[in-house]
Order: sequence, then C-alpha cells, then structure tokens
Amino acid sequence: MKELELLQNVDTAINFTDNIDKEIELTGQVSNIRILGWGAFIILRTPRYTIQTVADKNSVSLDLSTIAVESTVKVRGVVKNSNIKDISIYPRDIEISLNYIETISAPSISPLPIDTTKKELNISLETQFDLRPLSLRHPKLRSIFKISAAIFNEFGNFLTNNGFTRICSPKIVFSGAEGGANIFNIDYFNKKAFLAQSPQFYKQMMVGVFGRVFETGPVFRAEKHDTSRHLNEYISLDIETALSGGFEELVQIESAVLNSIFSKMKETCKYEIDLLNIEVPEITKIITYKFNEIKEIIFQEYKKDFRGENDLCPEEERLISKFVKEKHNSDFVFVTHYPTEKRPFYAAHDPSAPKESLSFDLLFRGLEITTGGQRLHRYEDYIAKMSKLGMNVESFESYLQCFKYGMPPHGGLGLGLERLTSLLCNLSNVKEASLFPRDVNRLEP
Amino acid sequence: MKELELLQNVDTAINFTDNIDKEIELTGQVSNIRILGWGAFIILRTPRYTIQTVADKNSVSLDLSTIAVESTVKVRGVVKNSNIKDISIYPRDIEISLNYIETISAPSISPLPIDTTKKELNISLETQFDLRPLSLRHPKLRSIFKISAAIFNEFGNFLTNNGFTRICSPKIVFSGAEGGANIFNIDYFNKKAFLAQSPQFYKQMMVGVFGRVFETGPVFRAEKHDTSRHLNEYISLDIETALSGGFEELVQIESAVLNSIFSKMKETCKYEIDLLNIEVPEITKIITYKFNEIKEIIFQEYKKDFRGENDLCPEEERLISKFVKEKHNSDFVFVTHYPTEKRPFYAAHDPSAPKESLSFDLLFRGLEITTGGQRLHRYEDYIAKMSKLGMNVESFESYLQCFKYGMPPHGGLGLGLERLTSLLCNLSNVKEASLFPRDVNRLEP
Repeated sequence: MKELELLQNVDTAINFTDNIDKEIELTGQVSNIRILGWGAFIILRTPRYTIQTVADKNSVSLDLSTIAVESTVKVRGVVKNSNIKDISIYPRDIEISLNYIETISAPSISPLPIDTTKKELNISLETQFDLRPLSLRHPKLRSIFKISAAIFNEFGNFLTNNGFTRICSPKIVFSGAEGGANIFNIDYFNKKAFLAQSPQFYKQMMVGVFGRVFETGPVFRAEKHDTSRHLNEYISLDIETALSGGFEELVQIESAVLNSIFSKMKETCKYEIDLLNIEVPEITKIITYKFNEIKEIIFQEYKKDFRGENDLCPEEERLISKFVKEKHNSDFVFVTHYPTEKRPFYAAHDPSAPKESLSFDLLFRGLEITTGGQRLHRYEDYIAKMSKLGMNVESFESYLQCFKYGMPPHGGLGLGLERLTSLLCNLSNVKEASLFPRDVNRLEP
Repeated sequence: MKELELLQNVDTAINFTDNIDKEIELTGQVSNIRILGWGAFIILRTPRYTIQTVADKNSVSLDLSTIAVESTVKVRGVVKNSNIKDISIYPRDIEISLNYIETISAPSISPLPIDTTKKELNISLETQFDLRPLSLRHPKLRSIFKISAAIFNEFGNFLTNNGFTRICSPKIVFSGAEGGANIFNIDYFNKKAFLAQSPQFYKQMMVGVFGRVFETGPVFRAEKHDTSRHLNEYISLDIETALSGGFEELVQIESAVLNSIFSKMKETCKYEIDLLNIEVPEITKIITYKFNEIKEIIFQEYKKDFRGENDLCPEEERLISKFVKEKHNSDFVFVTHYPTEKRPFYAAHDPSAPKESLSFDLLFRGLEITTGGQRLHRYEDYIAKMSKLGMNVESFESYLQCFKYGMPPHGGLGLGLERLTSLLCNLSNVKEASLFPRDVNRLEP
C-alpha cells in the first residue's frame, strides 16, 4: 500500500509577478528556437503558455544546436520582465533567462514535414488535415480550438445557470429516425440502426421531463456533397424548452446565450483574439425579418429575384446579412416564418396562416448558423400532420408516446459549433474548425 | 422588420422570499394532484421547482376534477410560508395559494400507463425503459439525471479551470482503430468505418498540441453480453495529459476532479441528494495497492485465491473495496501496476519490471469506474511493441505520426459517467443511469 499526497491544486499556472528575479522550473515543447551567436531564444509551449526563454550558451551545459523543434524539454531559469512584440507569444511581459535545459524527448525524424515555426503555415487544407497531429501545433491553428472550447463551455454554463438541464441522448438510433437519404447505417447486432442526425426527438421528450434542456454532442449527416459549409460529423449545440409565450422566446434565449459566449471569449481568450485578429461581435439589438418580407426587400434593394423559391440560397443569405449590416449595423439577423412545407413535420405553424411556420434561422455574417422554432405539442396534431405527409406513424411510436402523455408548448434550436467557430475566426472552410474533419473523402486521421 | 427585446435574464428562477404574500404567475406540469373536499393540492413541476400549490375550489373557476396529472397548467397565486415534509417537493418552505388556474395542454389518454405520482415506481426495468418519456418524469428518476448532469458539468469546469483544453474527437473512425471484436461497423460512403470505442488515439495526439486535454462524449462498445455493469453506448469522461512525474500524477488529478465533483454536487443537488438518500463521498486519502500485492492480501484475508489470474473479476473488486473500506475507511482504492499483457499496446511499462504496466484502475464501492495509465511516447517504442504483438503497423500510420513528430511523456484516464452516477445513486443497474440505454436487445426509444 502506498498513500499518495492529495493535491488541492493540479494546475500548472505560474504566478510570474511573484517570481520576478526568482528561478522557476518549466516543462514544455519547443515550438520555436532561434540560434544566434551568443545563444538562443527558445519558445516553449505549455498547457498555459507559449513562453519565451533565453539561453546564453555559456550559462547552460547543453549544446543548443542539438535542440530540435517539437522536443520536450525541462528548463530552469530566472523570471525577467520583458516587452515582447510577437503576438504568438503569451505572456509577453516576462521571459525566462535559462540556467539549465534538458531534453526529455525528441522527434524521431528531421526535418519535420511542415514548418510550424512560420507565422503562417501556407499549406493546402488537405496537407493540413493529413498532418493534423503536427499542423495543429501551429499557434494559429491551436487558437481556433481554444475559441471552440470556450464556446462549448460557456454554452453549457450559461444554460445550466439559467435552469436548463444537460442531457445526453443516444447517437445510435432506431428505424423511425428523422430519416431522409442523409443518414448513416450501422449494423447493430444484426439489426438495422442509424447514426443520429440530430438529438431532436430526444430533446423534445426531455422537455416533458425537465422543462428546459440542452445537449452538446456529435451529430452525423451522410451528405454526399463536399462544400466549405458542411461536415459529415459535427458538434451540435442544442436547446429545447417549454415556451410560455411564442417561438420568439427562443430568439431571445439564443441572443442571450450568444452574448454570454462572446463576453466569456473576451475574458478568457485574449491571446487567441489578438493572434487571430478576431472581431468579437455582440448582439445589441435583435433584428427579425419574416421570410417573405426579406425576400421582397432583397429584390427591391439588389434586384435579385429569389421570391419564387421556398428556401434561402447562399447568395441570398449573404445579401440579407449585407443589408442588415448596412441598415441596422448588426452582424446578426433572425429570418422568421419559413414556409411550413420547408420545415420538418414536427414544426408548428401559425394557426391563422398555416403556410407560415413558427420558426427561424439565424444568419451571422452571411451564413446560417442556427435553425429553430416551435414544435407541435399535441398528439393529435402529430398524427394528423404525419398522416397528411404519408409518413408511417407506427415506426415513430416510441417518440410519439411523449405527446400522448402530455407535453407543454415547446420549441428549440440547434447551433453548429464548427460554423460559429469558423465565422468568428474568419476561416474560409468550416472543416478548419473541426479537429479531425470527416467528409466524403476523409476518414483519417 | 420587428425588433425583439434583448433579455439579460432568461432564467425562470423566482425569489420567493421577496414575494411572500404577493401574487406570482407560474407555468408547469402537474406532477401530482390530490383532491379533497375543500379543493386540491396540486404539485407543479417547472425547470427549477417541484412546487406545492393549494386550490380552494371556491377561489378558482376551473373544475379541479378536470385537471389530469401531466397536464401543463398556468396558475396565478399568492406565495405563502409553509413547512412541507414531503421530500419530493422543492422548495418546501413555501406554497402557492391559487387564485387562478388554466389548462394549457393535457395528455391524450387516461389513465396513463404507469402511475408516476407514487413514491416508488415499482415497475420492471424493461417497462421503465419502454416508457422512458413518461417514467423519467418520476421525481426519483429525474434526480438521477440531475446528478449525472452535475457530474458532467463539473468535470469540464474543473479541468478547464486547471489548464486543460476541451477537445471533440471524431466518433466515426478509420480502420486502424483500437479494434477487437467489440466494434460497430458503419457504411461510410461505401468505405469501411467504425464507431469509436474510446477517444484514446485522438486525445493522445492532442496532448502534443495542448499538453492537457479532456473530452466528454459518447463511446460505443459492441459487447454482446447484457449485464448490469455494461452499456453499448455510454458517456466517457476522458483526460489525457503530459506528465512531468510518473503515472501517479494521474491518480492525483483524478482524485482532485472527483472531490471537486462531489463538493459541487453537495452545493447544487441538495434536493436530489435528499430524495435519493445519497451519501456523497469524499476522497480524504489516496489509497493505492499494487495489483499483485492486493491479490495476495485478498487471499490472506478472505482465503479467496485469484492470484493466478491476470485481471480482477467482479467478486475480487468487491472484496478489495470491502477490505479498503474496513482498513482505511475509504470508498476509493486505486489498484496500480496491472500486468502489461492485460493492458493495450500503448500502455507504458516499468522499465525495471517490464511485466508491470504503469497503470491503474479506480475501484469505487466495489466497481471499477476508471482505467488509466501512462502511455508509450517514443515512436520507436510503438514500432517495437506493435511488431512484437504482430500488429499491422501501417494501418495505424495516421495515429503514429504524432510520436514521430515528438511527444512528451503522457498518460490519461477514462471515467464512465453512467457507472459513477449509478454508484452514487445506489442503482443496481448502470442502465438506470442512461436516459435511453442501448443494449443487445434495446434500440428504442
């Protein structure tokens, strides 16, 4: 038997201010080394920092020319005030003057296939993805996923603090799933099963249990097209809640969630915001346009006639965002009252205008990042709607039971983590916001 | 165009103390109604509360006998001090004296197939799972998932606050996955793909990027046996981190994470802890035994000889926990130095005793809830080990590249959310801690 020490603090944060002119020990990976006549600048990457160390060749016993980029090294040195300009370094107000350096482990090959010490990687996306375990070590690529993690975390914390319960719905689902062609098949103990395209049915069922729920998990879409807007596996940030007013409560909840995410980002991601040159937005007013109304405006303003179409195309989404930015100085616009026939069978419609659904999309900087809306909540309404659409009601039995047992009026929305991250980080392809993107051609790494 | 009001507060929390003797409005589901001569007690379920309302039949215009359990109602009434004994009600120091009640929606059938108003459901697990959208509305079943959500949330928050970065690894994985028979196959655009059994490879790759990472996501195991300890889909709480000491750092990190989860539970789940009669544990000392050492002790203490076996069986796990509880008054014991041959190929071993791996299992109240350990980190060690085991190195190329590019010594662990939840809540079957369990026979709801 051995008793280990209980640690209150498992953090590796260092209070540099209290350690000026004192010696500290650090272990990290060498993200860059610049050898000069007198010694070297060695940039160390740790979980908290990308820190500058300075090694005078006469002060350390290790031959500096033997230190390879991406080695893990242990160093000891004295904390000194500094004023570093390079924004890929954090913190920039101190540096470590080394007394000791030791290599713990080193790459097996030299040179590495790409040079992660450059300010910009400048390689093709395919090479970047093929070499993901290395390319992600580049400061700019890492920063994208720090932003992504901050969004994921604050989404959950804001909702938890506001009375929502986190749920985890199954990703292996039964035959009555939302369906369509875009679904992956699984062999489940010789039964037919599918990968969940969304937690939709489950989050609705859970509104009957908890009233307000959210989920942060993967969803799977077997879409064959390979575009800069789509992933075949992505993280969906999902909300579903009982509504005491109309579906517009959802628009207000989403605006509050997003503002909370943005202010948390400003607080915890200062380094990444600087490095990626991100303009963190804020929803200062909630602008909504009805679907038909904005189509008419786009026709009048830009002489582009999409009025006959039952959906918004990418060009139209860009024009709507442009219009709203110019007219209202807003990066965000909620387009409401989509045609009922373009929404899924569970979408609620306006009783006085059945062709208009009580739903919305949120466009941010020209791209749709959210679809949401009120759902039907009466069992009879589901049976009528599904029968009208020629759906096989029986195969949805396990889902429909919740409506039989009584459900409050409710609605919800889904927010694509990678889409939001990529727009915030000014990425041209949503795949850049996925650690290991999955598309029609890519399953590895 | 319509501009909606921006809300700072989307919470539905009510400050009852400031509203004593004042009228408030509430919407919720009727979780119970008890009709008496003078009127009725109606228990309302909202996202925050399970609250008692009192309706004098002369004070409200609605015929109380028309109100069905699981209806959604809107009420107005005056907040009164109270002293309620029933621990399924929260808060218990106030009740609402109703002036108005209106039914918003109601179940479509009567009676409901099970009676969720009883103190205990007393139905078989299979019925409970078949009727999940209804059975989960029972206060005790809901509480299980409030506890589960609290664990999930605090796991992420504690690690984020301690310098770990949240990652989201893909669940659709390539052919070189960890393998074995227990893996689900997917048809991925006519290519062979699999559902991830763990985020193992990805979290290791990400240690090269962020140093310390964690993930909270589903994993999939195609295990054919149907036991009270296994799920075919569950939530894995995963940690992976660079190590500057030995693998025992992981034991210390996990102890700190668990203690943080337990104290957060005590803070935010008072109602659920009372209702489920939970004894919230605490790790007050970290007890570790080597695998061979504890086997010998179990033999000496209980005359049970498992010394020839290379793993721990369920009975042995129970005896070890019993021994540690009696000897050290600890609910937790870390069993270290498992035989290397029982650990996966990536497990690191003690250089001076290669048959002993630098790994551990955590047993809690008789059940293993965590497996963890240090990993190999040198490319050459992987090639040697995999060759020795006769593995096809080429099919792991995209994983092995991270070791080629240089990796720090590192290790990690995985914690099953449902196992931890079920042990904390004294459930006899881990499936009870899954909202929608998946097993060999069950794909629905």
